[in-house]
Amino acid sequence: MIRAARPADFSTILRFVRELAAFEREPDAVRSTEPMLAEALFGAAPAAEAVVAELQGATVGFALFFHNFSTWEGRRGLYLEDLYVTPEARGCGIGKALLRHLAAIAVERGCARFEWSVLDWNANAIALYRAMGAVAQEEWTVQRVTGEALLRLAGR
Amino acid sequence: MIRAARPADFSTILRFVRELAAFEREPDAVRSTEPMLAEALFGAAPAAEAVVAELQGATVGFALFFHNFSTWEGRRGLYLEDLYVTPEARGCGIGKALLRHLAAIAVERGCARFEWSVLDWNANAIALYRAMGAVAQEEWTVQRVTGEALLRLAGR
Repeated sequence: MIRAARPADFSTILRFVRELAAFEREPDAVRSTEPMLAEALFGAAPAAEAVVAELQGATVGFALFFHNFSTWEGRRGLYLEDLYVTPEARGCGIGKALLRHLAAIAVERGCARFEWSVLDWNANAIALYRAMGAVAQEEWTVQRVTGEALLRLAGR
Repeated sequence: MIRAARPADFSTILRFVRELAAFEREPDAVRSTEPMLAEALFGAAPAAEAVVAELQGATVGFALFFHNFSTWEGRRGLYLEDLYVTPEARGCGIGKALLRHLAAIAVERGCARFEWSVLDWNANAIALYRAMGAVAQEEWTVQRVTGEALLRLAGR
């Protein structure tokens, strides 16, 4: 039911990425293309990995992840960048199955942490994560530099 | 003044990691050892990279980073895990020089984003980041599963 993504899944995954961005109220934020995803997942130096969920022959969800690193733990962690289940397949436990699958990968690979980010208004997801034992890192906020500000900081 | 870390820097970096953890009010959180850092930075599959700052022959700071990946951008980002400058070397612009150095690496490598996390009470740092053009991702919170909860979720 859950398997590693294959090149044939790229168009489906890109559709899911766009649907997830729309759900996250940023429908125009997706600049990825199929070749970019192909390079990231199956290029010479993969930047990420993905798994997909299948239900009765249809691909109904995916998770994309990579490894981060904690200097406190001295070990890699598993960071889940995207998790998505199609609207018609929700309520069957597929999201939870994807999270369990990634937790198993994290344990197998000796990761100290399994982490992801959630939008503060996504109360349903937050309740699920809390029930699974996830702890919100409330006291930390991510800072991001992009575009012109990044070029300026880089001295370009 | 800023150069890539070398194996001879491990004990200094580990001391800095411990000093940073104390500053972050988690002095007992560091489980890293020199061999773990060596494996992470110079092992067969490095999990992170580090640079150190030197001032008049002394190592006075470091930054440790790795690449994350954005499905929206379809590109890697540069994630700064740790940034530290020794108390006696603060106020000379070393932290800012380290951030500029990493921004330049991010641009060279085609990264879409340069990101890091800050503790919400660290007002001095937040003011510096704001002046540099960093945008706080206020609406997102990191969720973390570790230890027993991770094993349970993995079905172990």
